[in-house]
Amino acid sequence: MAVEISRRRVLAAAAAGAALVPVARTASATPSDPVPAKWDEEVDVLIVGSGFAGLAAAYEAKKAGASVLVIEKMRTPGGNSIINGGIMSAPGCPGQIAEGIKDSPALLAADMLREGQGYNNPEKVKFLAEHALDTYWWCEKELGVRWVKDKIGQEGGHSVPRHAYTINGSGSEIVNAELRTLEKMGVKPRLRCFMERIVRDSDGRVKGLVVREGYRFGKPDSGKRKAILARRAVVLCHGGFGADVTYRMHQDPKLTAKFDTTNQPGATSEAWRESSRVGCQIIQADWIQCGPWNSPVEKGMGIALYFAQGGAASFGVWLDTKTGKRFVNELANRKVRADAIINRNNAGHTCIALTDSLGVEHLRSSRKGILEKCLERGCVKKYETLEDVAKAHSIPMEALKKTIADHNEDLAAGKDREFGRYINKLCKPMGTGPWYVSILSPKVHHCMGGILTDNDAQALDISTDKPIPGLFAAGEATGGVHGAVRLGSCATLDCLVNGRVAGRRAAAEKPWA
Amino acid sequence: MAVEISRRRVLAAAAAGAALVPVARTASATPSDPVPAKWDEEVDVLIVGSGFAGLAAAYEAKKAGASVLVIEKMRTPGGNSIINGGIMSAPGCPGQIAEGIKDSPALLAADMLREGQGYNNPEKVKFLAEHALDTYWWCEKELGVRWVKDKIGQEGGHSVPRHAYTINGSGSEIVNAELRTLEKMGVKPRLRCFMERIVRDSDGRVKGLVVREGYRFGKPDSGKRKAILARRAVVLCHGGFGADVTYRMHQDPKLTAKFDTTNQPGATSEAWRESSRVGCQIIQADWIQCGPWNSPVEKGMGIALYFAQGGAASFGVWLDTKTGKRFVNELANRKVRADAIINRNNAGHTCIALTDSLGVEHLRSSRKGILEKCLERGCVKKYETLEDVAKAHSIPMEALKKTIADHNEDLAAGKDREFGRYINKLCKPMGTGPWYVSILSPKVHHCMGGILTDNDAQALDISTDKPIPGLFAAGEATGGVHGAVRLGSCATLDCLVNGRVAGRRAAAEKPWA
Repeated sequence: MAVEISRRRVLAAAAAGAALVPVARTASATPSDPVPAKWDEEVDVLIVGSGFAGLAAAYEAKKAGASVLVIEKMRTPGGNSIINGGIMSAPGCPGQIAEGIKDSPALLAADMLREGQGYNNPEKVKFLAEHALDTYWWCEKELGVRWVKDKIGQEGGHSVPRHAYTINGSGSEIVNAELRTLEKMGVKPRLRCFMERIVRDSDGRVKGLVVREGYRFGKPDSGKRKAILARRAVVLCHGGFGADVTYRMHQDPKLTAKFDTTNQPGATSEAWRESSRVGCQIIQADWIQCGPWNSPVEKGMGIALYFAQGGAASFGVWLDTKTGKRFVNELANRKVRADAIINRNNAGHTCIALTDSLGVEHLRSSRKGILEKCLERGCVKKYETLEDVAKAHSIPMEALKKTIADHNEDLAAGKDREFGRYINKLCKPMGTGPWYVSILSPKVHHCMGGILTDNDAQALDISTDKPIPGLFAAGEATGGVHGAVRLGSCATLDCLVNGRVAGRRAAAEKPWA
Repeated sequence: MAVEISRRRVLAAAAAGAALVPVARTASATPSDPVPAKWDEEVDVLIVGSGFAGLAAAYEAKKAGASVLVIEKMRTPGGNSIINGGIMSAPGCPGQIAEGIKDSPALLAADMLREGQGYNNPEKVKFLAEHALDTYWWCEKELGVRWVKDKIGQEGGHSVPRHAYTINGSGSEIVNAELRTLEKMGVKPRLRCFMERIVRDSDGRVKGLVVREGYRFGKPDSGKRKAILARRAVVLCHGGFGADVTYRMHQDPKLTAKFDTTNQPGATSEAWRESSRVGCQIIQADWIQCGPWNSPVEKGMGIALYFAQGGAASFGVWLDTKTGKRFVNELANRKVRADAIINRNNAGHTCIALTDSLGVEHLRSSRKGILEKCLERGCVKKYETLEDVAKAHSIPMEALKKTIADHNEDLAAGKDREFGRYINKLCKPMGTGPWYVSILSPKVHHCMGGILTDNDAQALDISTDKPIPGLFAAGEATGGVHGAVRLGSCATLDCLVNGRVAGRRAAAEKPWA
């Protein structure tokens, strides 16, 4: 039987000169922080992070009758979610039906496991895929998210087009809908409130947080300390560490400061370190995804990717300017494509995304005005003739012509003979100017690893593998869902599905105070 | 300035009803264990694990004048090291000179970084490579290790043959030399002594261990608890977790119980969990190497690998019996080869290592008697004719003949046209029976990840990235040296070089008591 020994009792005994009373191995082994003698505030469910996952958790916890506080260290809510591309995989959604695409949760799960190289937890993947469609409708019906109903998109690594678009082409549509809904429910994220400490007591239970209110990002000592008691649970939805060069170089020394990131500046490691400190298990943190579709002309995520991915990847070609040839399946997963570009870049080659006026038609209708914005910003260039493209980018003209002719033959044959790319049936033969080009430059984009959780979103203790009472986690803060490679449009799904599970479970946790 | 607050003072204040005095963020954030009021035993340097690394650390610490205790949880010393193949990379060693191989530390480092996919720390790799040759001589001169002087071997991923062999073809030659030398110095590992707790105090310093003496592996509650004070430092050299199915499935869910391991049964995760619990950073634990060269006929590491690697990989071919063709560079790194075999196995194919009587000559002289042992055990089979090989393994005869003819042409041309394998100049054309075959079956072999350390082998704190005072680590217990793929014959080197660094540094640590 597990013998649980109060830390304070042990210390009292030690102070009294008694011999060590060692803690039994079967009890939670994690040493505890001092529990505040006085808490400044109390709440049932205390949620860290205001992105897709944190807000979804807040919705479910509140709906279940819990009092809820969401804290966010930055000045604005939404984390990376609010600057996300607003796409979500949903087999069976209206856009798929409109375009006659055959799909299933099982096919989505198979795609995730294949591209995840089996590093993902098959049960978690299955759960996610089976809840994709109801999450789509939940977004619409419960939150008021406006989806584009007659279009469907395809990110790399997916067998078929299967992601819905939000009407503004951004995750902000979902975050803002979550925020509006929560406000009506009486929940508003507390901004500039930084989680400094998770308070895990000697009984192994998480009892609350020490935070800094009025925190200014980048100033670790700013703000006022406050101890907030979480009667039922703390839910960690703090996202990834893509913007934290030191921590990401611990995991993968290649990703030095010379690599830009698509993440917001607050995507740093404090909460990763803190959860590990109190006994969480951080798994697979070295699987850090670089987006293959960014432009070096812009800082951060930018907008060129909408052209490179939503235009050229399905309706054009990606090619190496030195050879004039395609070099990868433009719909391969992000790792395959980013690695292919990084290797070419390191060998002194430049890679571009290219399509013509017909190739941007789908983009023009699915993301209205985006192409014009790209042209204004200079991250996509327009050329009247193919000769102009070749000249501007020093591409051997004959090779370029052959690449386009081969692509057109592939379309006619319904088969990419060289790289096996999925042939989108809306794709038309290339050759109608003007032509559009963006330069491809990988940027750090997503952390696949994170806190190890069970299927109830409960964090597992490093010493016992048992759930840490009072501690849940969801979204990019967790590991094991995406494996080696996260597929585009699956992060939104992960955050919403598992954020909701975490919120429901947290609200059902037995109060300790 | 960092404000360090005594944990006991904080608790005393809390107990007195005062408000929380939060620990400053710049101080070590890791909560501490109760420090025993009475220690049962004291030593300067307390080393966990009695493999290559732990014993090398013990040697250096003792030589520097420290009192040393090495604890080992198993009944016998040596961990995986004592069942290791007894090979070590050493550019410039007598075997290379005897065979006229041109090599350098820089080339070894380049090989390690390339195959490590840049997940390794370049400074650590450089340090290792530059200390390979002096470590070879240290083994011989200080420990009395007997190396084979006129042979040199090549493991996958190395550009050139560069590893020395111990005379008995086993790591036991090195471990036993370490044990003998240490015994003369008055140090003898304490067996069946399990590290239950690392005692890290409120000032962030590691002060000792709680152990179980008379521990019986597999019985967590066995043995007698004892608190051992480490005046200068604890050195963690506990090795990997290849035999721990639960923990390895956290990192890589594919590696289920159906995969055998080459590791000794004690290669489990307790120390990994415990170091994480007290604030170490575990990095890259999901890079788990499977050895590609094992035989399903044997349990564990077995001996068939000596034939598959030391015979057929350099002096024969590896082929898929269904096609009769080679399928991989037989000297590619372990991951490339293991993945290639696993994929074929999953598709229902069988892969074998094959060579002829001339192809086993090098093996016969570098590891005397091993081929006969393999034949006795049945993990290598002998066939008089190539027809017999084809028949026994259901290989299409024409394809098999062509594979051998192609191989012989490659030899003559000095170039492997299909896979780019290094052509060993001692390799002779195949065709002289009898023929030898082993079946290839990957087994979990090595953990590339582990504790994040600085270049002084000091473990870095998860909250501060600063060294944890009094805590060092070396060998397979650490991460960042080998990156994605450890090359064969580099683990021994890592353990000895970094074990020595850790021992020297631990002995120089300022005593706390």
